[in-house]
Amino acid sequence: MPRAHREDAVLSTMQDVPLTVTRILRHGTTVHGSSQVITWTGEAAPQRRSFREIGERSAQLAHALREDLGVDGDERVATFMWNNAEHVEAYFAVPCMGAVLHTLNLRLPADQLTWIVNHAADRVIIVNGSLIPLLAPLLPQLPTVEHLVVSGPGDRSPLAGIQAQVHEYEDLIAAKPTAYDWPELDERTAAAMCYTSGTTGDPKGVVYSHRSIYLHSMQVNMSESMGLTDADTTLVVVPQFHVNAWGLPHATLMAGVNMLMPDRFLQPAPLAEMIETERPTHAAAVPTIWQGLLAELSAKPRDVSSLGQVTIGGSACPPSLMEAFDKLGMRVCHAWGMTETSPLGTVARPPAKALGTDEEFAYRLTQGRFPTGVEARLVGPGGEHLPWDGESAGELEVRGPWIAGAYYGGAGGEELKPEDKFSADGWLKTGDVGVISSDGFLTLTDRAKDVIKSGGEWISSVELENAIMAHPDVAEAAVVAVPDDKWGERPLATVVLKEGASLEYAALRDFLTGTIAKWQLPERWAIVPAVPKTSVGKFDKKVLRRQYADGELDVTKL
Amino acid sequence: MPRAHREDAVLSTMQDVPLTVTRILRHGTTVHGSSQVITWTGEAAPQRRSFREIGERSAQLAHALREDLGVDGDERVATFMWNNAEHVEAYFAVPCMGAVLHTLNLRLPADQLTWIVNHAADRVIIVNGSLIPLLAPLLPQLPTVEHLVVSGPGDRSPLAGIQAQVHEYEDLIAAKPTAYDWPELDERTAAAMCYTSGTTGDPKGVVYSHRSIYLHSMQVNMSESMGLTDADTTLVVVPQFHVNAWGLPHATLMAGVNMLMPDRFLQPAPLAEMIETERPTHAAAVPTIWQGLLAELSAKPRDVSSLGQVTIGGSACPPSLMEAFDKLGMRVCHAWGMTETSPLGTVARPPAKALGTDEEFAYRLTQGRFPTGVEARLVGPGGEHLPWDGESAGELEVRGPWIAGAYYGGAGGEELKPEDKFSADGWLKTGDVGVISSDGFLTLTDRAKDVIKSGGEWISSVELENAIMAHPDVAEAAVVAVPDDKWGERPLATVVLKEGASLEYAALRDFLTGTIAKWQLPERWAIVPAVPKTSVGKFDKKVLRRQYADGELDVTKL
Repeated sequence: MPRAHREDAVLSTMQDVPLTVTRILRHGTTVHGSSQVITWTGEAAPQRRSFREIGERSAQLAHALREDLGVDGDERVATFMWNNAEHVEAYFAVPCMGAVLHTLNLRLPADQLTWIVNHAADRVIIVNGSLIPLLAPLLPQLPTVEHLVVSGPGDRSPLAGIQAQVHEYEDLIAAKPTAYDWPELDERTAAAMCYTSGTTGDPKGVVYSHRSIYLHSMQVNMSESMGLTDADTTLVVVPQFHVNAWGLPHATLMAGVNMLMPDRFLQPAPLAEMIETERPTHAAAVPTIWQGLLAELSAKPRDVSSLGQVTIGGSACPPSLMEAFDKLGMRVCHAWGMTETSPLGTVARPPAKALGTDEEFAYRLTQGRFPTGVEARLVGPGGEHLPWDGESAGELEVRGPWIAGAYYGGAGGEELKPEDKFSADGWLKTGDVGVISSDGFLTLTDRAKDVIKSGGEWISSVELENAIMAHPDVAEAAVVAVPDDKWGERPLATVVLKEGASLEYAALRDFLTGTIAKWQLPERWAIVPAVPKTSVGKFDKKVLRRQYADGELDVTKL
Repeated sequence: MPRAHREDAVLSTMQDVPLTVTRILRHGTTVHGSSQVITWTGEAAPQRRSFREIGERSAQLAHALREDLGVDGDERVATFMWNNAEHVEAYFAVPCMGAVLHTLNLRLPADQLTWIVNHAADRVIIVNGSLIPLLAPLLPQLPTVEHLVVSGPGDRSPLAGIQAQVHEYEDLIAAKPTAYDWPELDERTAAAMCYTSGTTGDPKGVVYSHRSIYLHSMQVNMSESMGLTDADTTLVVVPQFHVNAWGLPHATLMAGVNMLMPDRFLQPAPLAEMIETERPTHAAAVPTIWQGLLAELSAKPRDVSSLGQVTIGGSACPPSLMEAFDKLGMRVCHAWGMTETSPLGTVARPPAKALGTDEEFAYRLTQGRFPTGVEARLVGPGGEHLPWDGESAGELEVRGPWIAGAYYGGAGGEELKPEDKFSADGWLKTGDVGVISSDGFLTLTDRAKDVIKSGGEWISSVELENAIMAHPDVAEAAVVAVPDDKWGERPLATVVLKEGASLEYAALRDFLTGTIAKWQLPERWAIVPAVPKTSVGKFDKKVLRRQYADGELDVTKL
């Protein structure tokens, strides 16, 4: 709590200047006015737009939104767009005029998208022409949407007859002034929002402030994080609708970093081509994109030597992928975060002491080290705070100026209570279980909801699964918590055998002894034909728990 | 101004977490707990203290200050110290307990030091034993000082019989707990203060907030600025009493950078020795230190190959010095700032487009480029804002979250009014005149008070001086503004001839034609035996102006 000041208190004599996206825009479009946003077009030449032009067009867009579409301060303007220059323009025009940029995730199923647009009450959607086929079918269910602004190539005909007014982006901004008298905003004003589609309950809206975006951008540009400068070009594969493309559009304007934007050309072949011809020095994407690129490069070698640094996040990077990229001279750097953390939570740059040692690769496989802006603690099964000893596993809770402390309009639906996601003293419960080393490196081991709480101790389902899957006769294994009278919860191991294999449970249990502590060994076993999966291919443990509760599984107790 | 929110406004859902020095301390002493502060002792082994130990000893110091010395929130604790580990401990203990660290400049004359301690009403001074001879004579004039805490070697006897209580630093903290329940502070709380001894009026107190220090530290660690990480060791030659050693102690704790502290061993020989043995990768100091080191290295070569990056500020770095350092593999990076700017104002990293070209060196000789945190504008003689065209010269005004907007206890004495230092809309008037290129690089040409305001245009005194001093018969030249009925002001050139030389004024004036615009050529000339100098060796133009006004100079008008 702020302390009361004494009568003879010394007051700071610093200027009270807000940290705003507007400040980033003003800086990036003047000091770094000649840096570029390069958008892939699939044609011979990409589109090149200087930061100065981006600034002028952002001003034009703000005029159009305000004067033609009546967008007022605090209103939501949604985008349904690929990564491209116009999307960057919206990134700055909307927050700087005082409104809120709402990026829509075009990979979501129709029912979730509809729910989100209605929950946010978006009045304007800026949409890429090539995405009209995805958006048009939803429009009848989106009563708050009054204006569609269409940018880039694509058939407009599916929009015929819709209730919302349709505008062409270029026509709308063409005659507008290239300067805008941006309002001086309070730094805690909402700037952008993004919904996270958790596995529990409805989507939850995270609303970033001007302050949080500004501070996050500084962190991204610190040498310990991505640390890019105007000598860099970053290939932004991570979508702009995915946690603000990990903060890159804001951070790059701040530091003058050139942005290479793939638009809709996210297939391995065009990605390899844009790396070869535009020579980015950095790229950011989820592992699957890199797996595809790797296959492409071995089928058709390209000169990717410019790409010295590759940031991988979204899910853990397999060691084999990291090694393969290392061999190509592309240094992979792991990062961890979530929509609620803006997303920079940790970055896995090995500590100086590990450089050149056997430990270096192990450090790079962790989720990474916390920056000053992200305070972390591990909370054990009994609510106690655990030491950073690399061994004590607990749920990760984080606190900081770019970490969510609530959701827009409350928590996410009826299934989720605020206390499930935020501690009483305001920390975010990440739902991830892991350990932290004494030097602040995070290793995640499980999701909190999948951990087995047995007699006041935690058993990692992932660790058990990996140990069981190491058996030569096992194809797949999923471990879930099931109720137990004595211990509260105990693990149930469900196993898929390899074709033609047969196995004694007792033998499997014996196999685990040595790698798994005795008290963690499952008593309950079931052989299943297949592990149920979610739509994105993850184990669907909810289904297994229900099947167990309903007595559908044939369980053997040892 | 913050806008009123609409009823359906979207509020940010971000946590409201203050940016405090305490957060830096907590981070640096855990995540970077094994990084070190290395203090030179003049003996075989330097003192090595891990950040973890620094944190524990900071807690002990805070307990001692609070419990034994009664220091309360908002009180001033002064330091009269070299750069060393104990000074770093005070840097964190004092602000984190809620009090204000006041670093005293031990190079100031006795009367200014006395004035400053009394103005700040310091109640405690932490002093290095080796500095007692400097401080003891002042104590009878320092009635607010109740406690002296003495650290490190040095004769204590000059303190016998003084009114303030004398404590030994190590005794005071020895039995205290190594943890402190740091209060949660408002980020706008005062954290540290520093007086600037301008040439006009009394010293002026600049008070840094927790917020300003936090943001400044992030900026120092951005790749575009110093960009150090835990793989670096920085040799902090710039004194901790000189604008917080350019923010390095805070920035290094944030990023885990090792600090190499020279204590009182600031002579070229020990500096060369500590570079050779401790192998710092970065160093920061004013040009004179580097001139001395360069002479030392040519007299006695040392292995200084570790030192890849050298930050030079305080005054402009002569091109010859920059070239000499380049040859030794020490890349000089120019930076500009002042006490009022925390001090990071600009850093002269050349833009990517200039790397490897002839322009690169020219960019490195500018004061540098503004970061996002420092907005800049040039104000012309008539108060108009000038373009960033690399040609229009105006007074530099800056605005940002780590820039002063006032002075402690008002302006600096009777001679200075707030409007002399701050614009009506709150920008700092730097008192420097220069030009800004279209890509945001600042080149300073003069001090505003030395510029000649002639008929609504500005004439740079420095430019005229350099042109006159290029004449083979001229040893030195100083140009000052003198009143003129027609033009308001006109330049007066005072010239020191080389021994045995004689010169016609008209010939000298002709010599300037071609390099200096005709309307800028001085009509008034005086040959003087020597240019009057201030105590730090700068031209004392006040004396020249007075001598002219009093008719003491023998002036020829052409």
